[in-house]
Amino acid sequence: MNTFGTIFRTSIFGESHGPAVGIVIDGCPAGLPLDMEKMMFDIDRRRPGKKGTTSRKETDEPEFLSGILEGKTTGAPITMIFRNSNTQSKDYDELKKVPRPGHADMTAREKFGGNNDNRGGGHFSGRLTLPIVAAGYFAKTTLDLAKIEAKLISVGGEVDYQETLERAVEDEDSLGGIIECRVSNLPAGLGEPFFDSVESLISHAVFSIPGIKAIEFGAGFKCASMMGSQFNDPILDAAGKTSTNHCGGINGGITNGNELVFRVAVRPTASISKEQRSVNLETGEQTDLCIRGRHDACFALRVPVVVEAMTALVLADLLLMEGKVPRIF
Amino acid sequence: MNTFGTIFRTSIFGESHGPAVGIVIDGCPAGLPLDMEKMMFDIDRRRPGKKGTTSRKETDEPEFLSGILEGKTTGAPITMIFRNSNTQSKDYDELKKVPRPGHADMTAREKFGGNNDNRGGGHFSGRLTLPIVAAGYFAKTTLDLAKIEAKLISVGGEVDYQETLERAVEDEDSLGGIIECRVSNLPAGLGEPFFDSVESLISHAVFSIPGIKAIEFGAGFKCASMMGSQFNDPILDAAGKTSTNHCGGINGGITNGNELVFRVAVRPTASISKEQRSVNLETGEQTDLCIRGRHDACFALRVPVVVEAMTALVLADLLLMEGKVPRIF
Amino acid sequence: MNTFGTIFRTSIFGESHGPAVGIVIDGCPAGLPLDMEKMMFDIDRRRPGKKGTTSRKETDEPEFLSGILEGKTTGAPITMIFRNSNTQSKDYDELKKVPRPGHADMTAREKFGGNNDNRGGGHFSGRLTLPIVAAGYFAKTTLDLAKIEAKLISVGGEVDYQETLERAVEDEDSLGGIIECRVSNLPAGLGEPFFDSVESLISHAVFSIPGIKAIEFGAGFKCASMMGSQFNDPILDAAGKTSTNHCGGINGGITNGNELVFRVAVRPTASISKEQRSVNLETGEQTDLCIRGRHDACFALRVPVVVEAMTALVLADLLLMEGKVPRIF
Amino acid sequence: MNTFGTIFRTSIFGESHGPAVGIVIDGCPAGLPLDMEKMMFDIDRRRPGKKGTTSRKETDEPEFLSGILEGKTTGAPITMIFRNSNTQSKDYDELKKVPRPGHADMTAREKFGGNNDNRGGGHFSGRLTLPIVAAGYFAKTTLDLAKIEAKLISVGGEVDYQETLERAVEDEDSLGGIIECRVSNLPAGLGEPFFDSVESLISHAVFSIPGIKAIEFGAGFKCASMMGSQFNDPILDAAGKTSTNHCGGINGGITNGNELVFRVAVRPTASISKEQRSVNLETGEQTDLCIRGRHDACFALRVPVVVEAMTALVLADLLLMEGKVPRIF
Repeated sequence: MNTFGTIFRTSIFGESHGPAVGIVIDGCPAGLPLDMEKMMFDIDRRRPGKKGTTSRKETDEPEFLSGILEGKTTGAPITMIFRNSNTQSKDYDELKKVPRPGHADMTAREKFGGNNDNRGGGHFSGRLTLPIVAAGYFAKTTLDLAKIEAKLISVGGEVDYQETLERAVEDEDSLGGIIECRVSNLPAGLGEPFFDSVESLISHAVFSIPGIKAIEFGAGFKCASMMGSQFNDPILDAAGKTSTNHCGGINGGITNGNELVFRVAVRPTASISKEQRSVNLETGEQTDLCIRGRHDACFALRVPVVVEAMTALVLADLLLMEGKVPRIF
Repeated sequence: MNTFGTIFRTSIFGESHGPAVGIVIDGCPAGLPLDMEKMMFDIDRRRPGKKGTTSRKETDEPEFLSGILEGKTTGAPITMIFRNSNTQSKDYDELKKVPRPGHADMTAREKFGGNNDNRGGGHFSGRLTLPIVAAGYFAKTTLDLAKIEAKLISVGGEVDYQETLERAVEDEDSLGGIIECRVSNLPAGLGEPFFDSVESLISHAVFSIPGIKAIEFGAGFKCASMMGSQFNDPILDAAGKTSTNHCGGINGGITNGNELVFRVAVRPTASISKEQRSVNLETGEQTDLCIRGRHDACFALRVPVVVEAMTALVLADLLLMEGKVPRIF
Repeated sequence: MNTFGTIFRTSIFGESHGPAVGIVIDGCPAGLPLDMEKMMFDIDRRRPGKKGTTSRKETDEPEFLSGILEGKTTGAPITMIFRNSNTQSKDYDELKKVPRPGHADMTAREKFGGNNDNRGGGHFSGRLTLPIVAAGYFAKTTLDLAKIEAKLISVGGEVDYQETLERAVEDEDSLGGIIECRVSNLPAGLGEPFFDSVESLISHAVFSIPGIKAIEFGAGFKCASMMGSQFNDPILDAAGKTSTNHCGGINGGITNGNELVFRVAVRPTASISKEQRSVNLETGEQTDLCIRGRHDACFALRVPVVVEAMTALVLADLLLMEGKVPRIF
Repeated sequence: MNTFGTIFRTSIFGESHGPAVGIVIDGCPAGLPLDMEKMMFDIDRRRPGKKGTTSRKETDEPEFLSGILEGKTTGAPITMIFRNSNTQSKDYDELKKVPRPGHADMTAREKFGGNNDNRGGGHFSGRLTLPIVAAGYFAKTTLDLAKIEAKLISVGGEVDYQETLERAVEDEDSLGGIIECRVSNLPAGLGEPFFDSVESLISHAVFSIPGIKAIEFGAGFKCASMMGSQFNDPILDAAGKTSTNHCGGINGGITNGNELVFRVAVRPTASISKEQRSVNLETGEQTDLCIRGRHDACFALRVPVVVEAMTALVLADLLLMEGKVPRIF
């Protein structure tokens, strides 16, 4: 449930307005160097504070509880926590009776019988992606030569999105976006035909990032409008290099040594100050709702590094499963 | 790897031109009736023989090796096999040295060091989806009131695709398509925020169907061009019914009781008789390749029932995990 | 449930009097040679026919359904089945209403709501250990240099047990025994402190052999009567060789490079012709029961090779997890 | 690896002399009351301070990082940590070059390439059982009516062990012991024939407690010296009650509704002040070793509550798997 991976395995925990969010990483190779600058670089990429992101600020520095000694991984589980200091729980009190459209308020209530912590989204909060990014550092370091790069390629349907974004902030509305992720220098032969295709594993990981609603590999949805003679990637050499990359670097669920490419759609932020229609659960009557508090106008701005981290978790695990990286560095 | 699920768990095996393909289903509730007509109805939906599908014919009737007694499931693992009778392996001999573009020939070779059975795609063959469909019968029966329906909504980009398909057959080329799947009467509260969101689990299962390259839930990729005020589904009543369904029936990774909706893109069939560019692995030189043998011009025609089966496997497991269906029927 | 292992993973199926028993082996390295003589040698060691074992005879030859090509493993799942030809189901008809003491009749009925196949013990039958032994061949071959040897060291409490055994056969009674298993040439560093200690994994596997009721490693239960200064194994050299082996080759859950040693207790065969006390489930009244049919007076005679196979499954998996054997041979 | 369980799942982390030890509990039912007195009662049972136990003292109070709100479980992962305050790491500096007999020093070094934290046993320390005991509180509460009771039934081979223990302390030596665990009011039908028999799961969990070297269920090793007519438990009524309990409450791997009974052997404490033979890893030469620092003369005194906790983890998971306890209390 809150655990992912077979050898390189992460277990996530925490609520937005509880004491801390954190992660346990099991199966990380021993002897990996902890380069705090690199980790904080990624953490900063996820941080709010830019135009279009929430004004909530945290120091976002990990406290290591286990698994690190003298600047290296020990081979035992690594535990990192991030204290939640900057919480304003009163903003969320009213939401117990009026569930926010587009949020997990109703589903969490149903699943946990109303025992869940709904302050700030609780365990469903985007804040849970912070420890994911930190775990991503260890996964990326395990990947060695392979390089993962994700970027936001459009917001609200626009490639050049500055104005669109500004307008959304003014309107107290929100926007979604599309992120593209590319992995180069990845060895061929990773993944399984059933059931752990590379597409299966990456989509599994990526869809647990709050707000992702779609994923496509290579040509993606366009493949449905192509002829086989257009879609098939001509093979150029005995190493399997192809002249096009419609399959996104994956054949039969297995990496083919070309660039791995996929795109994901991030929905617009659910929390908006604009008036919305909901229901009062106590009276059963319809009501209007304005969500106060701090939110991102477009949280997709902060997601690329999270997509990178999730991808790294999957690939580090696959490399370890195939014995292509050592358990001791 | 070849196993999927936590309580309701399937393990798949077999190669296209080996003795048989088959599946072991573990954790299926005891006492479920085996209705062979219903199972064969689904198997027939996957069967070739229509315009635009391969002329390879098999009887496609399961042989039960375990788990069934007096027309009911016993609670022990159910094993079904399907013998491969109608194989023409000579068609595939040449492919050992010239890998087919768009196929898993190169990646399987890399992954298994050339020990893999490459006849007819071996373990990567679409024939492996036959036992999945048969397993789907048990999963659907476990689901009880929930109803799954998948259909092909476009081929080669056309909603009305008869002519397009005919032209592709004439041209010895192939086409892809888009399949939409809807699940009604599904209880709210299934799935997990991390890492087993409903989107995560369904995409994991569906991407192991050979040839799927994209998936989107609800509004899908369109969400990235919508405002939050448009995308958020207004809540109508205390049961969580919404007036729109942009989220596809899932909030925070958990079913919300509305219809579950997703679409997948199926790539055009990789095997085409048309000349393609590849490489001769023995000489390292480029060569042209025409793939003889029987293939589907559009195998997407046969995939809807496979998508249904995969979806049923995921949902049956989630219902059992939540204790919402009994282990003994 | 019916699956064991992380990389080297087996899924077992079948009932004693159903069409077949069998196993799917996933994650076996590709390119392993299939030496049928070696496999049949182990299968013969499990076979009945000796003094003190049942007169039921089967050919016990595997039918391969997948995963083998040209005498080698392909890397895809290996499926082997063993047809059940020599079944005499009428022997078991009466048992539906009068459960046999020491058998799983009552517990299976409870667990599966009476839907289970109780003929010959169904899925609980010792016949299920036949595919385990066959799977053991592949695991042992994966182990390479490590050598596993299990033998029966006592029967009915006697090291020299011929007479004891003869008397039990005459008395229509049954006997248990103790099996010792030793593994040499095993690399140090396998296993985990939590939760997958080598003791944890071996005991997990071995306790699924029907009729095992106890296991001890190294000095075992005797350790509880020893002083630390007696029990601790003095270390002789930098490779970790010790002068005694009270810990059974495992420290902190991890192999230390010395011989791995454990013993298991096998209960006396549950089926005996002697009169026993049970209950008639229809009337609720006590009744006497004599179990007709063929049974082993001491099935422990046939279990050593099963213990070896289970141990090999565990160790092959651990070696693959640590990357100490390749995925392609 | 450091995770155990299927629905009720625990992930353990921490080192003896690192910042903290802790545990994440996933899948615990929502709405369980947190009764700190009950939890601390069990934690106190594990605490040192009695005759024959170490003088190291910690407050041993959990800090909750997640999963608890207003005195109840939320349904999200519960994280508890225990700070390590009372560490004297200088005691352990020398051990890097001279491994302690009976300890994991050598095996940890081999497994983790020397990157492991060896201070106080690091991740192998008995201190890791503290979070297990705390997790046991939640598992026991999930069990509802079933009652688990473990007690030490002998030390150094003596049932009346006070003098034996005193002598061992004086001799600066150590002693092992035998613990018996009984579970009453457990429903029939838990467990699986393959591979997750109740014996398999309990032994898996219990053997990850540091220092356990043997386990037996019911009559245990004695069964090997019994006749079938003695061992088989006569069935008294239609509910499956038996007049004896040689099988320990388990038939065919599945609970039969009678008392579940097993015993484990705990080895003598590995750390003793008495001189022992080891090797200097730098010079390769033999050397004598006296282990300074605080240790238990008989840590078995503290283990019963740990055995209870491990047993509770297994049983809570099995009850949830069978849908016999709800996911929401």
